Amino acid sequence: MTEAPKINRGLMGVHFDRSAVSDIDGAAGRLYYRGYAIDDLATNATFEEVAHLLIMGELPNADELAEFDARLKASRVLPDEVIDIVRATSGGHPMNVLRTAVSALAALESDAQAASEEGMLENGIRLTAQVPMIIAAHHAIRSGREPVKPDPSLGHAGNWLWMLKGETPSEDAARLADVDFILHAEHGANASSFAARVTVGTEADMHGAITTALATLAGPAHGGAAEDVMKMVEEIGTSENAAEYVRQRRKNREPVTGFGHRVYRAEDPRARHMRDGVRKLGEEMGQPEWYEILQAVVEAMKPYARHGLNVNVDFYSGVVYQLHGIPMDLYVPIFAIGRMPGWVIQCLEQKRGNILIRPLTLYNGPEPRDWVALEDR
Amino acid sequence: MTEAPKINRGLMGVHFDRSAVSDIDGAAGRLYYRGYAIDDLATNATFEEVAHLLIMGELPNADELAEFDARLKASRVLPDEVIDIVRATSGGHPMNVLRTAVSALAALESDAQAASEEGMLENGIRLTAQVPMIIAAHHAIRSGREPVKPDPSLGHAGNWLWMLKGETPSEDAARLADVDFILHAEHGANASSFAARVTVGTEADMHGAITTALATLAGPAHGGAAEDVMKMVEEIGTSENAAEYVRQRRKNREPVTGFGHRVYRAEDPRARHMRDGVRKLGEEMGQPEWYEILQAVVEAMKPYARHGLNVNVDFYSGVVYQLHGIPMDLYVPIFAIGRMPGWVIQCLEQKRGNILIRPLTLYNGPEPRDWVALEDR
Repeated sequence: MTEAPKINRGLMGVHFDRSAVSDIDGAAGRLYYRGYAIDDLATNATFEEVAHLLIMGELPNADELAEFDARLKASRVLPDEVIDIVRATSGGHPMNVLRTAVSALAALESDAQAASEEGMLENGIRLTAQVPMIIAAHHAIRSGREPVKPDPSLGHAGNWLWMLKGETPSEDAARLADVDFILHAEHGANASSFAARVTVGTEADMHGAITTALATLAGPAHGGAAEDVMKMVEEIGTSENAAEYVRQRRKNREPVTGFGHRVYRAEDPRARHMRDGVRKLGEEMGQPEWYEILQAVVEAMKPYARHGLNVNVDFYSGVVYQLHGIPMDLYVPIFAIGRMPGWVIQCLEQKRGNILIRPLTLYNGPEPRDWVALEDR
Repeated sequence: MTEAPKINRGLMGVHFDRSAVSDIDGAAGRLYYRGYAIDDLATNATFEEVAHLLIMGELPNADELAEFDARLKASRVLPDEVIDIVRATSGGHPMNVLRTAVSALAALESDAQAASEEGMLENGIRLTAQVPMIIAAHHAIRSGREPVKPDPSLGHAGNWLWMLKGETPSEDAARLADVDFILHAEHGANASSFAARVTVGTEADMHGAITTALATLAGPAHGGAAEDVMKMVEEIGTSENAAEYVRQRRKNREPVTGFGHRVYRAEDPRARHMRDGVRKLGEEMGQPEWYEILQAVVEAMKPYARHGLNVNVDFYSGVVYQLHGIPMDLYVPIFAIGRMPGWVIQCLEQKRGNILIRPLTLYNGPEPRDWVALEDR
């Protein structure tokens, strides 16, 4: 008898390929995009620079940045049929509407089936510009407004807020959205990026791969954490209740949302930037209680930090969105806007020297058995 | 220095979980659905029986079959908005239209977000009935006809042909479609089923997972083989040219479509059933040349059989569809109709005792480096 093969449930610890895009040091709590620390990027860079860094491989110089920015702005176009489809599905969850619209673009844009690396890159950049427009158009329609035209004087984050609300955003608000997108832009072999790579592994196109990524990000265990944290904060209500809330959850062996990560054993290095945003915003807006509740939960969770239960990026981002008056069901779509460059470059990495990603399952069902006719069952 | 981790490119040979659904003996060329040999099922069963076997776990008795059949037939309903979306995207590839429509159903059907196992099962069965309707409606619309209503007197395969062509199919044609669906119904951790499981791993719903599966199946290296074989057969033209065609391809180190499979080292056990279909159909229709070309290619490929380059199921299915007058771009959607039960049950398997599927990539990009301001680049 041969030895039973090892089962790698969840593919935990299994390396399926190499990647030159991001490096995660889970033990130390460090994250780098192509060698640059996430702290440096969140502090100094714009989303456009980070998108260029991730997708094109290097930080752009002024000319390259201008060209890349022009490319993104020229891509701020949606076929009328997409708006019709958004309208027809506007009662659905924004992630389902977004996924449907991206999938429809594959049928509506003549070059969406491009199989070349250059064609896939082009489609990836175009979708990066279109995804926030779709979300904003949907939100306008379901709010009884008409979608507004993009504003070419605004950057990626500012234009998104403009299209979402129909008002020019403050510089602070645009910068916070920019930082949020940068923090979410790329994160190794996370489930949505990995699923997109499985899709590209069959030689599928960029629109197909991004559709897969959106379907996978929509799962509460991946993109849904920010929303869950916001619900938790509302349930806790005041900072005095936090310790008891945590005690009850731990007693019932229920997870506390926003803590723990498959890869990080130390604090998620992205969390700090959103934490600062929550504190500052809350004070400015005269609503410091959100920050206080979050910090009371962190305090109550401290005994469990040694089990790897540190705070992750989503712990703070939900409250930031809440303070900006963004409805909860847009939290995951916002994650998607940020993650676009990461998905695009991982699909391109997969495409180069592609291989079908096709693992195995170990069969544990019935032994071979004879056919039984219907009348004998 | 620690040892570099092993890279499992393509996850070849890696078991990511257990599964009780199908067992593939690649060395012997055998395939079982829950213990029943594919030969027995292709010879004796209907698609409805096989779908019940796969999804519910056992072959149904007469009462169970009647109930399951009624459930499928009651699910033959599409919201008007889906037909509008099919119309808006009708110039696109049928796989893109199908994927968009399935994604839209998530936004249009009130219970599509069900997270319970029972709710996901219900949605899986409903989608199994709806997928062929969407493909047929799209084909009717792009052919300038109105979609026809489903015929409750017809089984799954017969109703699909009725809706596709607007004509009641012959018993032979319906049975051949039935067999084709049975042969494609399930196949372990293939890329589309695996990608769907990655999506469910994040606690996403059935509609999201099937959207992912469709995006992944659409890749030429997965669902596209039947279409590629048909193109090859047209290129070869007559059986006399087959040997020279194969010689040239091998000389240029190009693959010969329809040969080889990640798992099978012997002949794909599904191939025989489609081969018999091609021969019989070709004779009946006075077009034996297709079969002759295919067999001449098989003959010319014999020297390579020891390298595992045996014929696979898609080698014959394209010609079967061609003889039925089905356009090439419907070959992959037909594969999807057949594969629905396999996707549904694998998503349910994943759901039970779920775990996030999140592997790793080994970083091979730039070392940590300092931030450089735009003006210094």
